[in-house]
Amino acid sequence: MEPDAALKIIARGTEEIITLEDLRRKLASGRPLRIKLGVDPTRPDLHLGHAVVLRKMRQFQELGHKVILLIGDFTGMIGDPSGRSKTRPPLTLEETRANARSYVAQARKILLQDDEVFELRYNSEWLSRLSFEEVIRIAAQMTVAQMLEREDFKKRYTEGVPIGIHEFLYPLAQGYDSVALEADVEMGGTDQKFNLLVGRDLQKFYGQEPQVLVLMPLLVGLDGVEKMSKSLDNYVGVSEEPAVMFKKLMRVPDEVLPDYFRLLTDLEPAEVEEVVGKGGMVGAHRVLARILTAAYAREVIPAWLDRAFYERLGYRLEEAGRDRQPRQPELAELAGVVAQAEARYDEVARGGVPDDVPTVEIDPAELKDGRIWVARLFTLAGLTRSNGEARRLIQNRGLRIDGEVVTDPNLEVSLERPLILKRGKDRFARVRLRG
Amino acid sequence: MEPDAALKIIARGTEEIITLEDLRRKLASGRPLRIKLGVDPTRPDLHLGHAVVLRKMRQFQELGHKVILLIGDFTGMIGDPSGRSKTRPPLTLEETRANARSYVAQARKILLQDDEVFELRYNSEWLSRLSFEEVIRIAAQMTVAQMLEREDFKKRYTEGVPIGIHEFLYPLAQGYDSVALEADVEMGGTDQKFNLLVGRDLQKFYGQEPQVLVLMPLLVGLDGVEKMSKSLDNYVGVSEEPAVMFKKLMRVPDEVLPDYFRLLTDLEPAEVEEVVGKGGMVGAHRVLARILTAAYAREVIPAWLDRAFYERLGYRLEEAGRDRQPRQPELAELAGVVAQAEARYDEVARGGVPDDVPTVEIDPAELKDGRIWVARLFTLAGLTRSNGEARRLIQNRGLRIDGEVVTDPNLEVSLERPLILKRGKDRFARVRLRG
Repeated sequence: MEPDAALKIIARGTEEIITLEDLRRKLASGRPLRIKLGVDPTRPDLHLGHAVVLRKMRQFQELGHKVILLIGDFTGMIGDPSGRSKTRPPLTLEETRANARSYVAQARKILLQDDEVFELRYNSEWLSRLSFEEVIRIAAQMTVAQMLEREDFKKRYTEGVPIGIHEFLYPLAQGYDSVALEADVEMGGTDQKFNLLVGRDLQKFYGQEPQVLVLMPLLVGLDGVEKMSKSLDNYVGVSEEPAVMFKKLMRVPDEVLPDYFRLLTDLEPAEVEEVVGKGGMVGAHRVLARILTAAYAREVIPAWLDRAFYERLGYRLEEAGRDRQPRQPELAELAGVVAQAEARYDEVARGGVPDDVPTVEIDPAELKDGRIWVARLFTLAGLTRSNGEARRLIQNRGLRIDGEVVTDPNLEVSLERPLILKRGKDRFARVRLRG
Repeated sequence: MEPDAALKIIARGTEEIITLEDLRRKLASGRPLRIKLGVDPTRPDLHLGHAVVLRKMRQFQELGHKVILLIGDFTGMIGDPSGRSKTRPPLTLEETRANARSYVAQARKILLQDDEVFELRYNSEWLSRLSFEEVIRIAAQMTVAQMLEREDFKKRYTEGVPIGIHEFLYPLAQGYDSVALEADVEMGGTDQKFNLLVGRDLQKFYGQEPQVLVLMPLLVGLDGVEKMSKSLDNYVGVSEEPAVMFKKLMRVPDEVLPDYFRLLTDLEPAEVEEVVGKGGMVGAHRVLARILTAAYAREVIPAWLDRAFYERLGYRLEEAGRDRQPRQPELAELAGVVAQAEARYDEVARGGVPDDVPTVEIDPAELKDGRIWVARLFTLAGLTRSNGEARRLIQNRGLRIDGEVVTDPNLEVSLERPLILKRGKDRFARVRLRG
C-alpha cells in the first residue's frame, strides 16, 4: 500500500499524531513498524474505552506492522512503596501473569495474535536489571518543573497533596520501556500524552529515532460525562453477555452516540450522519447495539448485517489481504445470539418479562403468618443490597411486583404463588417458596 | 569516661545536635560508635573550613569511637548526567581514588588513622549495586514538596532555574549511605542539615536506629562574609606553606577572629576573650597564626607555645590516654618553621623584602634599546596575568619597583642591575637579565 493511503487509514479518528511527518517517513520505510501499547496489569477488565485504542492497533496489524502489548508488571510488583496506601498491595508474579493472560484473552476479540504481528512483553525484563547509575542518567533528562507540568502532578502539588519522589520515576520508566522496545509508535489516549512524550525524549537521548505518538480520543462513558471507566460504573465491557451489551448500548446518551460510531466502528462521518438522521436516534442506537454486540460476541461478523457494515467491521480485510471470512454456520449462530439479545431488550422495553429471568427460592422460615416484608423479599432476591435500599427505592416508585408499583414500604407479601420482582427498567427476579 | 562528660566534649562548639538525647543514649551504650562524614571527591583540597568538622571527629576518636570517611565516588563517576554542563566531566575510577588518597593524606593532620578508629569507604560499593526496585522504595520515602523545602532547590525552583530529577536522587543516595554504613552519628556543616536528616528517615524505614546529627557552624572565610571556600579564594588550606598560612591568618577580619579561636582551637570562651582582650587584636592574630601554623605544619605541637595552648592543641591527649607526646628534635625543628614564617611576615610588614623571593630571568630578546615595558616586565615575572592587568594595577598604585610606586603605565625599565618587583602588600619577584 502507498504510504499516504496507509497514513490516511491510521490518521482517521485520532485526536493527535506527533508528528504526522515522522509517521509518514516511518510508513514509507517499508519495514514493519513496532507499535507499543503499555498495559496496566492491575486492571485486567477491558471495556470499549480500551477498544478505541486496540482497534487502531488492529489497523496497524492489517497493514503488516507489529503490535507489542507491554505489561507494566515491574511497578505492579512493587505495589505502593511509600507504605501509605493499604489498598494497593504489591502483585505477585503469578497475579501479574494471570492478569496479563486475562488481558490478552480479551484483546483477542480485537487484535490479531500471530507472532508475526503480535508480541507480549513484560517490562520487568529490563527494569529489574536497571542500575542506579542508569536511573540517574535517565532522571537527568527531565527537570522538576517539566514533571510538575503534568496535569495531575500540577494539581496535587498546588493542592498540597503529597507526591512521592518515586512517582516522578514512573513516567521515566515508561519512557525507558520505549527505548528497550525500540518502539516506532506508541499508542495511547490523549491523557497519556505527557508520559508518551517522555519516551520520545529518552529515545533521542539514547540515540534512537523518537517514537511517533498516536493519541486517540477518550471515549465518554454511559453517563455522557466522564471518561469510560470500570470504577465509575459507566462502562461497557468487551466481554459482556450479549444481552447486557445490547441493553447498555441502547443507553448511550444521544449527544455522544456519534462518537461511539466514530471511535468504535469504521463508518465514515457521512455514513454516521446518515444512520443517525435516517433512523432517528432510537434507530441509530439499534444499529450501534447490533454491530457491537455482534463484533464482541466473538471475532466474526454476522451475515444479517448489511454488506457495508460487514466490510467495515471486517477492518478492511481486502486491503490487508488476510482471509478472515467467517464460515456460514458460525455466522448463523452469531445472528441468533444478537437476535436473542435484541428480542430480550424489546420484550423488557414493552414492559414484558424476558425468558431468562433467574429464579430465587425463598426459605419458608422467612415467612411470618405466611407473609414476608417486601424490603426483605427484594434483598433476598438479590435486587437490592439492603432493606434500607429497598425502602428508598419504594419511595422513588422503583420496585414492582408482577408489574404493579410497590408504594407501601411496610407491605407484607404472600408467596402462595411465584412472583416476578422488578427493579427499575430491566432488572428482574422470579421468586417462589422453596419445597 | 562518663557519658555526660563525653557529651560535654562533643557538644562544645557545635551549632546543633539532633538529638542530644539520642547522642547521650548512644554514648552511654559503651560500644564504639560509627561516625560518618561524607566527602566530595571532586574537591580534594582541605581548608580550615573542613578542619572545623574534622577536629570534632578527632574528638570522637579520642573518646574511642570510629570515624568513617565516606568518599562519594559513585556520583562523581557519573559526572553531569544531564549533559548540560561541560565543566563537570565524569571522574574516572583512578581520579576518584587519587582524590581520595589526597584527602586522606591531608586529613592525617587532624584525624587518627589507625584501623581501630578510622575507616575509609567508597559509596560505589553499595550504590552501584542498588536495583531500580530499591531506588523506588527509597524515593517513596520523601515527597516532592519536602524536597523542594531544601533551600537551594526552593530558590532554584522559584527562580525558574532547572532542577534535574536526578538531583532529587542524590540526597536520597546520601541518606542510603548511612543505612549501608549503619552510621550512629553523621557529621556536617549546618548547610548539610537537610541531607543528613534524610539519612535519619531512611534508617528508620530500614529498621535502624536513626543516626545523630552533629552539625558544626560554617567557618567564615578571610573576606569576613562568605563561607570559607576554595572557589571564592577566601580560604586557608590545611597544607599551605607555613609562611602563607601565617600571612593569611594575620588577615582574618577582627569580627570573626573569636570564631576562628572557638572553632579551630580548644580554648575556652573565657580564654579567647582574654587573648583577644590582652594582646589587642594584632596580638590575638599573632597567637592564632602561631598556633595554627604550628598545628598544620605537621602533626606535632611546638614547645615554644605555652603549656595551655599545648594541651589544647593536643586535643586532650591525657583524656584519651594516647601517647602522642612529640619528640624534642621535631619540636625544635617546628619551632624554627613557625619562627621563619613569622619573621617573613614581619619583614614584609615593615616594608622589607623577605629572603625567599623567587628570581625570574628575563630573556635579553625582550629588551628594546636596553629597556622593557613595565607592564610586560611584571607579567613575565609572574606577578600579573596580563599587560592589561598590570596597567590597571599601576593606575591603582599597586605595583612597585625597588620600593618605589610605579605611576607611569608607559614606563620603560632598564635591567642593567637586578630589580625587586612587588605587587600589593606581599607578592614579590626578583628579576634580572639572563646570561
